[in-house]
Amino acid sequence: MRIAIVGTGLIGGSVGLALVRSKMPEAVTLWDPDRQTLQLALERGAGTIAGLDLRDAVANADLVLIAAPVDKIVDLLPAIRALVGPGTVVSDVGSSKRAIAAAGEGAFGAMFVGGHPMAGSEQHGIAAASPDLFEGASWILTPASGTSADVYRRVTDLVAAVGAQAVALPASVHDALLAQISHLPQLVASLLVDLAAGGSSARSLLPLAGGGFRDVTRIAASDPAMWLPVLKTNRQAIGEALSDFGQRVGELASWLTEERWDLIEGLLGDAREARLELFQKETAPGPTVTVSLLIPDRPGVLAQVTTAAGELGVNLEDVRIFHSTEGGQGRLDLVVSGGEQADALRVRLAELGYHPVQGWHE
Amino acid sequence: MRIAIVGTGLIGGSVGLALVRSKMPEAVTLWDPDRQTLQLALERGAGTIAGLDLRDAVANADLVLIAAPVDKIVDLLPAIRALVGPGTVVSDVGSSKRAIAAAGEGAFGAMFVGGHPMAGSEQHGIAAASPDLFEGASWILTPASGTSADVYRRVTDLVAAVGAQAVALPASVHDALLAQISHLPQLVASLLVDLAAGGSSARSLLPLAGGGFRDVTRIAASDPAMWLPVLKTNRQAIGEALSDFGQRVGELASWLTEERWDLIEGLLGDAREARLELFQKETAPGPTVTVSLLIPDRPGVLAQVTTAAGELGVNLEDVRIFHSTEGGQGRLDLVVSGGEQADALRVRLAELGYHPVQGWHE
Repeated sequence: MRIAIVGTGLIGGSVGLALVRSKMPEAVTLWDPDRQTLQLALERGAGTIAGLDLRDAVANADLVLIAAPVDKIVDLLPAIRALVGPGTVVSDVGSSKRAIAAAGEGAFGAMFVGGHPMAGSEQHGIAAASPDLFEGASWILTPASGTSADVYRRVTDLVAAVGAQAVALPASVHDALLAQISHLPQLVASLLVDLAAGGSSARSLLPLAGGGFRDVTRIAASDPAMWLPVLKTNRQAIGEALSDFGQRVGELASWLTEERWDLIEGLLGDAREARLELFQKETAPGPTVTVSLLIPDRPGVLAQVTTAAGELGVNLEDVRIFHSTEGGQGRLDLVVSGGEQADALRVRLAELGYHPVQGWHE
Repeated sequence: MRIAIVGTGLIGGSVGLALVRSKMPEAVTLWDPDRQTLQLALERGAGTIAGLDLRDAVANADLVLIAAPVDKIVDLLPAIRALVGPGTVVSDVGSSKRAIAAAGEGAFGAMFVGGHPMAGSEQHGIAAASPDLFEGASWILTPASGTSADVYRRVTDLVAAVGAQAVALPASVHDALLAQISHLPQLVASLLVDLAAGGSSARSLLPLAGGGFRDVTRIAASDPAMWLPVLKTNRQAIGEALSDFGQRVGELASWLTEERWDLIEGLLGDAREARLELFQKETAPGPTVTVSLLIPDRPGVLAQVTTAAGELGVNLEDVRIFHSTEGGQGRLDLVVSGGEQADALRVRLAELGYHPVQGWHE
């Protein structure tokens, strides 16, 4: 597989370094609008160049990964569309997905598989890039409804080669999730600091704040220039999360006024349980189990099946498709860790009308 | 000084261990309603006992420190009132202060000096106690309006002996501050977790959350049993903070709807600046400087002067009073670190109508 990386900053550069180290791709070609960035990516060994034009990087690629800032990705799509053939798979790393997936599918149809690696660094740019950045991280993918298993596989091969774990989700689920676990917390942390620093004498007293405040507000030190494009491109989901959150704040305020200590205790207890559960050490996964299902030869199956697994929290170790020689039907093998995950997935797939099978002969 | 510690859990036990190690007090006597806790405090060397009754611990004390859970402190005041003489100073460690200060001053008048050490641990109880718990921590004090320098000094001697730094604040300022930097962030963290865990499939996706979410929500794992009494006793200030916060959330939501990116960028930028400033390494303090002022011999002076310093963020290294032999007037020496802090304090004291002097002869 020949992979082109468009944008060689922290993420693109780290992908390049990890891919080169993995020896998986036949070629990794790089492009960046900034010459100095591109030069440094080359010097660091994140890939090679065929020339300085975008065309030189993408024209012969089997997979183009757009690793530009989130607000630049949509602008790059038509330029890349004009330069690649119909067999090229295109993916990206933007931290909001609905708008990008719509534009990407508009340009590339089922060949576009949006992505978002859940890894980053406080630092920016190619200088901070590392081949280990994605080791053990989740990498969310948003396959288009028509994406085939073979196309999807090309992207998951990249994800696996950099050491990450692919998780498929619908773009809208991704955006709502990120609004809740990343974008809303960022805004809330900024509001808490601003409120605490806002009183007349409050600022001189802030150093009295203990570790709790320090933890809660750590991300408020993030660079606004990095956050604004994220907020802009995920405005709708963040608006919904902020609205839900505002309602909960109002409800809590009324509980406090009415001294509904039972309800407040319930909230604190539920949150405690969820927080403790959240970062429990995972139980050791069992041996891999393959869930096989007969699938109709129509678009949408791969996206539905993989995102169902993603939403269940079931990690797909591998996805393989076997086309039936008789046509019209095929078999999809989903490899998962342990019988528990396999059972959960089988139940969900049956609900969706699929028929997991025990044995099947090609 | 003979010090009695009422309640020998994490805080009381740690105070006892630190006091015994400091060799400052003549005696440290302990009491706890729970025999096993008291026994363990004795075994760990946090002090001695004269008997098992509260009376045995407090009857001969110059200073009684109530280190009970915040909701139990007010209940202990009348019991202690009945057991000590008029010369006994009483303090506490409750994490809300307005209600406790009112009850304490009701029972003990100017002999009550509320307190709140800004230190703690994830763990509870005497088993987790450590003589180092308060090393370098701030210990907020809320002197009563009539508290004399000599009474205040008795409490600051204890604070210094355990390695902490006394900071005087009005009880209402303490409560508003703690609502903003501790109690509101706790509730907000719980709401964020509850909201994120609340969706139908959201819970299985929570493990995708990155470090930002982990930081913001760490305190949501706290024990509700510890928090409820704090929330109950600081209900008013928390209600105000929650109301302010709710308004800011609503405002932010409308900025998002109206795409007021300039205002959102301003918020993120202000918060970033405040957060970075907050935990900057302090500049090395200069040599200590003594700010002296002539004071009228009337109640309220000590509280006003020390809390003015506290609200400015000026650390008082020492507070000494010299009574004039002619009566009616005295001198208060405030020892601070460095000329900058001294200047800030002089300006503020002049605004309050005090007259810092350069030299004064007893």
